[in-house]
Amino acid sequence: MPRKKKLRSSKAGLPPGALVHIGEVKTSLPSVTLTGYGDANGVTERELPDISMLDSEENNFPVRWLNIYGLHDAALLSAIGKRFDLHPLVLEDILNTDQRPKIDAYADYLYVVAQVYDPSRPRTDFATDQISIVIGHDFILTFQEQKTGTFEPIRQRLRAEKNAIRKQGCDYLAYALLDTLVDSYFRIIERLSDQCDDLEEEILGVPKRGALQKAHALKRQLSHLRRLIWPLQEVMSSLQRNQSEFFGNETRLYLRDIYDHTVHLLEQLEDLRDLLSGLLDIYLNSVSNRVNMEVRALTVVTTMFMPAALVTGIFGMNFRSMPLLDSPTGFWLALTAMASVALLMLALFWRRRLLR
Amino acid sequence: MPRKKKLRSSKAGLPPGALVHIGEVKTSLPSVTLTGYGDANGVTERELPDISMLDSEENNFPVRWLNIYGLHDAALLSAIGKRFDLHPLVLEDILNTDQRPKIDAYADYLYVVAQVYDPSRPRTDFATDQISIVIGHDFILTFQEQKTGTFEPIRQRLRAEKNAIRKQGCDYLAYALLDTLVDSYFRIIERLSDQCDDLEEEILGVPKRGALQKAHALKRQLSHLRRLIWPLQEVMSSLQRNQSEFFGNETRLYLRDIYDHTVHLLEQLEDLRDLLSGLLDIYLNSVSNRVNMEVRALTVVTTMFMPAALVTGIFGMNFRSMPLLDSPTGFWLALTAMASVALLMLALFWRRRLLR
Amino acid sequence: MPRKKKLRSSKAGLPPGALVHIGEVKTSLPSVTLTGYGDANGVTERELPDISMLDSEENNFPVRWLNIYGLHDAALLSAIGKRFDLHPLVLEDILNTDQRPKIDAYADYLYVVAQVYDPSRPRTDFATDQISIVIGHDFILTFQEQKTGTFEPIRQRLRAEKNAIRKQGCDYLAYALLDTLVDSYFRIIERLSDQCDDLEEEILGVPKRGALQKAHALKRQLSHLRRLIWPLQEVMSSLQRNQSEFFGNETRLYLRDIYDHTVHLLEQLEDLRDLLSGLLDIYLNSVSNRVNMEVRALTVVTTMFMPAALVTGIFGMNFRSMPLLDSPTGFWLALTAMASVALLMLALFWRRRLLR
Amino acid sequence: MPRKKKLRSSKAGLPPGALVHIGEVKTSLPSVTLTGYGDANGVTERELPDISMLDSEENNFPVRWLNIYGLHDAALLSAIGKRFDLHPLVLEDILNTDQRPKIDAYADYLYVVAQVYDPSRPRTDFATDQISIVIGHDFILTFQEQKTGTFEPIRQRLRAEKNAIRKQGCDYLAYALLDTLVDSYFRIIERLSDQCDDLEEEILGVPKRGALQKAHALKRQLSHLRRLIWPLQEVMSSLQRNQSEFFGNETRLYLRDIYDHTVHLLEQLEDLRDLLSGLLDIYLNSVSNRVNMEVRALTVVTTMFMPAALVTGIFGMNFRSMPLLDSPTGFWLALTAMASVALLMLALFWRRRLLR
Amino acid sequence: MPRKKKLRSSKAGLPPGALVHIGEVKTSLPSVTLTGYGDANGVTERELPDISMLDSEENNFPVRWLNIYGLHDAALLSAIGKRFDLHPLVLEDILNTDQRPKIDAYADYLYVVAQVYDPSRPRTDFATDQISIVIGHDFILTFQEQKTGTFEPIRQRLRAEKNAIRKQGCDYLAYALLDTLVDSYFRIIERLSDQCDDLEEEILGVPKRGALQKAHALKRQLSHLRRLIWPLQEVMSSLQRNQSEFFGNETRLYLRDIYDHTVHLLEQLEDLRDLLSGLLDIYLNSVSNRVNMEVRALTVVTTMFMPAALVTGIFGMNFRSMPLLDSPTGFWLALTAMASVALLMLALFWRRRLLR
Repeated sequence: MPRKKKLRSSKAGLPPGALVHIGEVKTSLPSVTLTGYGDANGVTERELPDISMLDSEENNFPVRWLNIYGLHDAALLSAIGKRFDLHPLVLEDILNTDQRPKIDAYADYLYVVAQVYDPSRPRTDFATDQISIVIGHDFILTFQEQKTGTFEPIRQRLRAEKNAIRKQGCDYLAYALLDTLVDSYFRIIERLSDQCDDLEEEILGVPKRGALQKAHALKRQLSHLRRLIWPLQEVMSSLQRNQSEFFGNETRLYLRDIYDHTVHLLEQLEDLRDLLSGLLDIYLNSVSNRVNMEVRALTVVTTMFMPAALVTGIFGMNFRSMPLLDSPTGFWLALTAMASVALLMLALFWRRRLLR
Repeated sequence: MPRKKKLRSSKAGLPPGALVHIGEVKTSLPSVTLTGYGDANGVTERELPDISMLDSEENNFPVRWLNIYGLHDAALLSAIGKRFDLHPLVLEDILNTDQRPKIDAYADYLYVVAQVYDPSRPRTDFATDQISIVIGHDFILTFQEQKTGTFEPIRQRLRAEKNAIRKQGCDYLAYALLDTLVDSYFRIIERLSDQCDDLEEEILGVPKRGALQKAHALKRQLSHLRRLIWPLQEVMSSLQRNQSEFFGNETRLYLRDIYDHTVHLLEQLEDLRDLLSGLLDIYLNSVSNRVNMEVRALTVVTTMFMPAALVTGIFGMNFRSMPLLDSPTGFWLALTAMASVALLMLALFWRRRLLR
Repeated sequence: MPRKKKLRSSKAGLPPGALVHIGEVKTSLPSVTLTGYGDANGVTERELPDISMLDSEENNFPVRWLNIYGLHDAALLSAIGKRFDLHPLVLEDILNTDQRPKIDAYADYLYVVAQVYDPSRPRTDFATDQISIVIGHDFILTFQEQKTGTFEPIRQRLRAEKNAIRKQGCDYLAYALLDTLVDSYFRIIERLSDQCDDLEEEILGVPKRGALQKAHALKRQLSHLRRLIWPLQEVMSSLQRNQSEFFGNETRLYLRDIYDHTVHLLEQLEDLRDLLSGLLDIYLNSVSNRVNMEVRALTVVTTMFMPAALVTGIFGMNFRSMPLLDSPTGFWLALTAMASVALLMLALFWRRRLLR
Repeated sequence: MPRKKKLRSSKAGLPPGALVHIGEVKTSLPSVTLTGYGDANGVTERELPDISMLDSEENNFPVRWLNIYGLHDAALLSAIGKRFDLHPLVLEDILNTDQRPKIDAYADYLYVVAQVYDPSRPRTDFATDQISIVIGHDFILTFQEQKTGTFEPIRQRLRAEKNAIRKQGCDYLAYALLDTLVDSYFRIIERLSDQCDDLEEEILGVPKRGALQKAHALKRQLSHLRRLIWPLQEVMSSLQRNQSEFFGNETRLYLRDIYDHTVHLLEQLEDLRDLLSGLLDIYLNSVSNRVNMEVRALTVVTTMFMPAALVTGIFGMNFRSMPLLDSPTGFWLALTAMASVALLMLALFWRRRLLR
Repeated sequence: MPRKKKLRSSKAGLPPGALVHIGEVKTSLPSVTLTGYGDANGVTERELPDISMLDSEENNFPVRWLNIYGLHDAALLSAIGKRFDLHPLVLEDILNTDQRPKIDAYADYLYVVAQVYDPSRPRTDFATDQISIVIGHDFILTFQEQKTGTFEPIRQRLRAEKNAIRKQGCDYLAYALLDTLVDSYFRIIERLSDQCDDLEEEILGVPKRGALQKAHALKRQLSHLRRLIWPLQEVMSSLQRNQSEFFGNETRLYLRDIYDHTVHLLEQLEDLRDLLSGLLDIYLNSVSNRVNMEVRALTVVTTMFMPAALVTGIFGMNFRSMPLLDSPTGFWLALTAMASVALLMLALFWRRRLLR
């Protein structure tokens, strides 16, 4: 995160539209894949070594989905930008990989950008990749930082013979992509939820030193996630309500469904946040309780030994005439007195519930 | 809850409208019941083993209410979906039993989904069932996860000879169903309120170990409930205000009444939350107070025994010439001195209110 | 409160408009009083044993105000409902005495319901009565749970010869009633304010055990009051802004004045809440401070006696050859040493401000 | 404050427009001053013993500003009300000196009421005076509780020969008056800011007993001030936006400037509130820290003396055969042992940073 | 800050438009630089000793950007105000250097004011300079308190031969200036973020005394920054949405980009605030933990020495007949007993995890 921010400030003063890639380079080799369908020939998937091949006869499909992995090849992006007439700001946003999720409407296309969690990463890695989607009337462009499995389910559904997605237009593909994006968040929230459950178990049991830090780290991750999903919800809300020409009436119903999902995600986050703040309270209280128990232990010990010590002190005085000293049972009487007082104290503590 | 969420994520990537039941299977045998009325023949209740029987002559009532228990029979739901021309997303939502309450308007029907508490469950069980209601012009469909008594009062009112509900149309039945849903929340809030009262009694008395956890569990339950009722309030608000064709002007007045009930519910929740956060404060303070009392006990004990111990120490020194040692009353004088100092200390503490 | 809620849930499932009185029965005998004026004859006040007498010649006044005490007589309310064509939901709301304040517009009348504090009750009783007002074009109905002095000032102003209220229409009477309702809250806030002042005095002085509970009880009362006044403010705001046919332009200016009063009330509540949360902070801090003082006392006592005890211990050892033991002044030297160390410690504490 | 509130409730039940002065009587003698200008004759300032003199030939100025000091003379106010056709509610609000700042539009004038701090009062006195301004097309009325210097700068600017204010109409004078009102708040915020700075210095140094109370008193004053300025901001916002006929387009630009000032004031208040809540945290933490230091002192003292005491105890035992007792250096060896243990403990504490 | 505020109040009562410079004088010599371009001749930069030179033939460029350093020369500002027909309030705002960021629309120009951080200052200096921008149809005025490098990147882009900025009109220059302003905040947030990281390291390690103060100082700086950026966001939002005639449709897309940046800035601030409040919690908890450890140390020491002391006391009593006293191994038995008890205690503590 700090690295990215520094890069962002290092770009201050550059003109907009300067195609400078901001962020880690996550893949060595950019690749462009065309997926075309919509006519009788089924679905075609093809690597495009050169962007100009797009306009050849054989690639002329009714629906064309161009997926680009890797963002650091400025020449490639510039070529794509020219071919699809993308605004310099769109290209800049695609390259700048710490974009806030948003939707920008242009005359000939919609530009959607979001941050997704890669499901193929290990469970403790919460890094995000930026995904940009350009939705045109008869084309979809998707830009990813690296090769991930995010859109794999869509490709499989396209390949499957009977799936309805093939009979639909560009807007339905756009919906399917967006739906996949949002669904990926459910997976990440589950992971966070598992971590919260682990933490709960620890704190209700014997909390270790770092429990507080863990709770705060989780809390920050939750609010980070919230800042990713909240604008997505707004994107969906505006897509669903506005009479955008890029989505048919039927598809707009599906967008409403995605919108519901984002609301659901936000509520789950809220729920986890409630859990965490409750856990924090319980943890802090357990610290106070331990102080309490320490002090009690000290009090009990002190109170039990002090009277006995006083007795020994009394019989240790050097007065010439003291009772009991010469008696053969004096010593044992004194010991009995000490023990009785100690037992009395114990009984008192027991009754006042100080020893639990 | 965790199980459901996992199921939800396992569905990621599936096309929408795939009829996969998400959630526990709560009943073994799905059943379909038709309740018809609205003409001169009174009310008819009939089990429908086959959905196609709906279109037979004998089931042709002006108002038809179809109640379905059990959601895991995909074939049945698919048949119902085809018969009433339900959108695939509606069917998906019906099956996905952790839906957030909402209302979706379609051309030929309204789809309402809510989570209700089953009154027949034991008082400590706060599990919810999902209820879906499809409101058409001349039919009502209700989908429940299992057989519960939720809609029983409506059926009894329909069966009763004189009840006005029979003379009304489909919209009034829809209102009655929604009203029953919302009323069920009053019952659950009472239960939570009772638990809060119990907790209050405990915390103001002698709080046990788990009081804090209990308070937080209640707090989470309250905010969970709030997240169920809040969208219901919005549903009611939009139903009442919008000029929906599914509700007559007269019935819309009744919807306003339900809306008032949801507001009332939310205020009761707010009230309970206030109570709980006050209790938390009092509990945490009582912990601090106990530390205080422990320290005080320690101080009192120490302060009372130390001077006496010093006296014994002084007369235990081995100096050859010390006053009193040879006096026959020396010992008793020393004891008297110790007792006096201790009593003096006690009096001092008493005056400074340290002994309560 | 719990009793009412239980009653509310026990009504779940009943059809709307069922005239079941929910809440305590607060008066034994319902009574109906007609106050008529608006023509040359001045003001007439008359008990109506039978509601049908309303339509007799002698009761035909331009402005008719019907006040009903006692809500448990279903027959009476039903008769009134029929006579004035009140909607079943209005009657239900009148009877259900834990209504949230609100205004409902119907074609022929406005229905306003509010909760008021009875000024004639003792100062520590914060129970509320529900008052319903139905505002028609030429009649006003007021429903109260029991005989209170709430509307007495209005009656006195009506009886007074010169008062302007007589020359005005129904809307001005409605305004006067609403104004009286809102004014009654000022009295209750004063009482709460007095209680807050008492609590402040206690907490800044020597807080007793229950101060925290008192503070939280007050806080809850404040937020309860807020939930009563807040919707009233909205009622006033909507009455004043909307072009309701029930209020003339001139009277609407007066409604704006009531609205200002509700805003003022809410600000006073806010002010009291600020005061209370400050008091809570101060109280909790005073508990911490007391722990601090206890520990300090313990430290001072321990530190003053321990060195002296060590000295006695040293001279109590049984070594054969020890200095001073045989000296006649040895004992006094030892005592002096002890006293000196203790005084030194005292001086040290004094300088480090540990003894205040 | 309590006195005023009691007076307010004592007015409950009175008809609106009853000219009862609510609040302290702050000046003994009401006075009326007319300031007229707008024609070739410059500016005239004149005491008006009788309100009817206003309509004499010599007082017929294009712009007339009538300033009234003292509000308890009902006859005078009634005469002014009649002369300028003021609504009874306006007169009531003028007299009721705990009004919330607001603006009310009437057909022939605007009524603005605000609370200002008198700059001539001592710096620790935060009492406010109510100022009412009635803005007509060709007259301005200002009502003040007592003679203050609030509007003196305006008078001086009017008297100055070259000032632009004389060439402007009534609306510009109204703007100037409002601007002066708002500017007076800057002065009071500076005072509060100074007090906050003093408190910060105290709390970061050696906080005295009452620091917490002081902080809360300041916090309440800030929120009180916020409740005075916030509605003023709304007044300014509505004045500037709405196409009120009382302000020309040019003057409306100036109102926008006042609006900016109110926003600025609110941000300064917010800033001070942030400072205060940070100070509260630091103060409460310093209390905890002191407990910590006390306990540490106790621990250090106990730990240093206990081992030594044990040594003395050991050699004080009465066993017949004990090593060292008969040795001539035994005593000194024992002392050395005690001192060594104590020094060792000290070193240990030092290394574990327990002695700072 | 206090100095400025005092100056602000000292201006109370002055007429608006009085050209009094409020704030520090930060530069000794004001200077005016004209940058002109837009025709075939490329870009011209020229110092203007006299403002009237602007209208000479040679300075007649299609786009003219006038940059003024230093605000205390009233004559210069007055001349510029007259030349460009600036409203007195604009001039006043330019001079008053603690303006809140805002945008004011006038008939012939837009006035934008903002606070920027000078990147050339040392990293620990968070002082801001006020920058005012007047955007006309064919001119841009920028007013700065002193010579800073803020706009240097723009000048360099203008000088560069191939840059697109030269081919664009006045609105694009305005956009570039605003973009530079907003970008400067990224730099400052990075600095604050670094400081937060340092603080985190300290608090998670061994927090020093002033950590709490540092955290609160950072918190206040964050909210100060938030109050600077928030209104800028609103400025950008209104510029982008409203159909202002000063910006073409194409440039408005770029304004949307700046708006996105401000949102991004605010989210980063939010993130830092979350981090800080987590750190505060952790710090305060560490204080509690230290109390806990102190008390534990005391308890351990006391508990280990008290039993041993009791043993010495017992054998120090002067009873004639006591067991062991005469035995040659008695002393060693006693010592062994003491050591055993101490070791037993240690073992007990170890098992109960009191010694970690």
